[in-house]
Amino acid sequence: MEALLPLRFTGFSVLVLDQRLLPREEKYTEYFDLEGLYESIRSMELRGAPLIGIAAAYAMFLGVKNRSFPNQAVLLETVKKNAERLNQARPTAKNLFWATARLVRLVERNIGLRVDEIIDRMRAEAVRINEEDVEICRSIGEHFLTVLKPGMRLLTHCNAGALATYRYGTATAPMYLGQERGWNFRVFVDETRPYNQGARLTAYELHRAGIDATLICDNMAAMVMSKGWVDAILVGSDRVAANGDAANKIGTLNLSILARHFGIPFYVATPTPTLDLELPDGNHIPIEERDGEEITHFLGVRVAPEGIKVFNPAFDVSPHENITGIVTEKGIAYPPFELSLKALAEKTGPSGNG
Amino acid sequence: MEALLPLRFTGFSVLVLDQRLLPREEKYTEYFDLEGLYESIRSMELRGAPLIGIAAAYAMFLGVKNRSFPNQAVLLETVKKNAERLNQARPTAKNLFWATARLVRLVERNIGLRVDEIIDRMRAEAVRINEEDVEICRSIGEHFLTVLKPGMRLLTHCNAGALATYRYGTATAPMYLGQERGWNFRVFVDETRPYNQGARLTAYELHRAGIDATLICDNMAAMVMSKGWVDAILVGSDRVAANGDAANKIGTLNLSILARHFGIPFYVATPTPTLDLELPDGNHIPIEERDGEEITHFLGVRVAPEGIKVFNPAFDVSPHENITGIVTEKGIAYPPFELSLKALAEKTGPSGNG
Repeated sequence: MEALLPLRFTGFSVLVLDQRLLPREEKYTEYFDLEGLYESIRSMELRGAPLIGIAAAYAMFLGVKNRSFPNQAVLLETVKKNAERLNQARPTAKNLFWATARLVRLVERNIGLRVDEIIDRMRAEAVRINEEDVEICRSIGEHFLTVLKPGMRLLTHCNAGALATYRYGTATAPMYLGQERGWNFRVFVDETRPYNQGARLTAYELHRAGIDATLICDNMAAMVMSKGWVDAILVGSDRVAANGDAANKIGTLNLSILARHFGIPFYVATPTPTLDLELPDGNHIPIEERDGEEITHFLGVRVAPEGIKVFNPAFDVSPHENITGIVTEKGIAYPPFELSLKALAEKTGPSGNG
Repeated sequence: MEALLPLRFTGFSVLVLDQRLLPREEKYTEYFDLEGLYESIRSMELRGAPLIGIAAAYAMFLGVKNRSFPNQAVLLETVKKNAERLNQARPTAKNLFWATARLVRLVERNIGLRVDEIIDRMRAEAVRINEEDVEICRSIGEHFLTVLKPGMRLLTHCNAGALATYRYGTATAPMYLGQERGWNFRVFVDETRPYNQGARLTAYELHRAGIDATLICDNMAAMVMSKGWVDAILVGSDRVAANGDAANKIGTLNLSILARHFGIPFYVATPTPTLDLELPDGNHIPIEERDGEEITHFLGVRVAPEGIKVFNPAFDVSPHENITGIVTEKGIAYPPFELSLKALAEKTGPSGNG
């Protein structure tokens, strides 16, 4: 079966997999212009920070393709306006701003070329952003494989998978690379309440790829670990502070404590752009609280009492002392993370979309 | 508002709250005979080990009430047949067998009385079983209050509540007693995947009683504890071994590890009949695995990929070293539990339905 790609660029359009319909249906919609992709990002048809960056880059190209511009200045003006428009699709998505800004800078740098040449370079830049992301994920996977062994039993949380990037994912990258090499990993997938990204997305993409995946509820991880069934825990991250404290989907802190309790290696996958070394520690990472209806309702049906109070934080912070290693595309950082993360960030290597 | 009772005995019938409709609807159905209650137990309209015992006791009375018997021997024969019938409603429910056997023994002991006198004693015995359960729960609550303080923030898992017993519940007993005394506890309620007893039942009964309850997903407990927002964790138990290892709803082990990590007191509520002191430790407690559809489907809708493997253990075992105290109706056992549990079990006090 063909690899599951959350997005395909045809040269003149972008096909987007509607992730909201997973795991029930694999449906792609073709978008020919910026507005279509804007709506796709806004409505969370596609999600995952790196993937949003890739989609935004293509949208910047589609926004000017096949349109005529009297001169380069008008093109630049349009490109800047398009960037502003796209940035509104998900106002907290760092990768979105990063990608649109990169396309604006490209146009500024090439302002001396012909309009059609500039537009062609925008296309090439969007493709490059996409390819860089594949390269980052693959490199993360390669580094992971240096600390894993064939036949290991892994556990992951949420979706740091191919569906959040373009291919391979971050925490899932070694699972896919391992499969290409016959390493036969077995993977426990946390359901990941309340939005069920593990059950809907990670279980889906691993199972579809033929990887041995077993779905569990988040609260079963402790039992599975107590049985000695988990050799390593691999999770993604949304933001990593200078001391190694890592923010990730709610429930990751829980796993990091269990890992420490049971002496199981706990690895955080992190493209270096996700490092935020200005931030001294995890106490400075703001935690988004989301609508309680994510917990009180399911598929529109009330499953908790009317009027009940709800606490629904979207992320938590795993303290550095629970983390065995932080796996980036440039290598693995080990404690003390203050030193190792700084050294990695300064190293040259594949870089880009975080 | 009147207290929420999962069952009401009228003297000639039993009203049963359909717990499957909670939290959306409070609907009682009136049963006048054994078959109605049999079906109610079998279909899980009512659930919770102690409550099943109470319902079975009333069913034993309704099964012979208003019927004429030529002599005491025929009554006894019918009572025995009824017990066998009821025992099939939930073949693993220890309390069910315990309650029906108790009614059979009562008839045997009183075989010299008139038939109508025996039947009247059956009614009184069923009421006694019900009242004993209230007394056990209240005593558990009283003992809990000796280790808690007004204004404490508690966390609980699953439903060891009034809905599983008749009133007060076990782990929830101090919450209700505390409320009667203005102790203003605040309670975090774990959703309790995959069957959502926390969200559907515990959140419902606490909120309905006016207790300050906040619903969270199971994977948020670590974050809530890391913030210093939990002063004690109170859970129920399905079986406790001689060394203090306690089986309870899946996810309890997780909480016990978090409690230890954060230095938060972790108490297990246990009526002494739930103690199984023949069992040396938790390794000997068999763990039921349930149907994967509880995780892959929700309200009949598939929410995980077709064909995905699922592991769905219904219970886990919290090792005694994570447990601060085991709270029974006869007092609180502290480590070493081998000694303290044995001493409590031998103590006289309210006893009965576990």
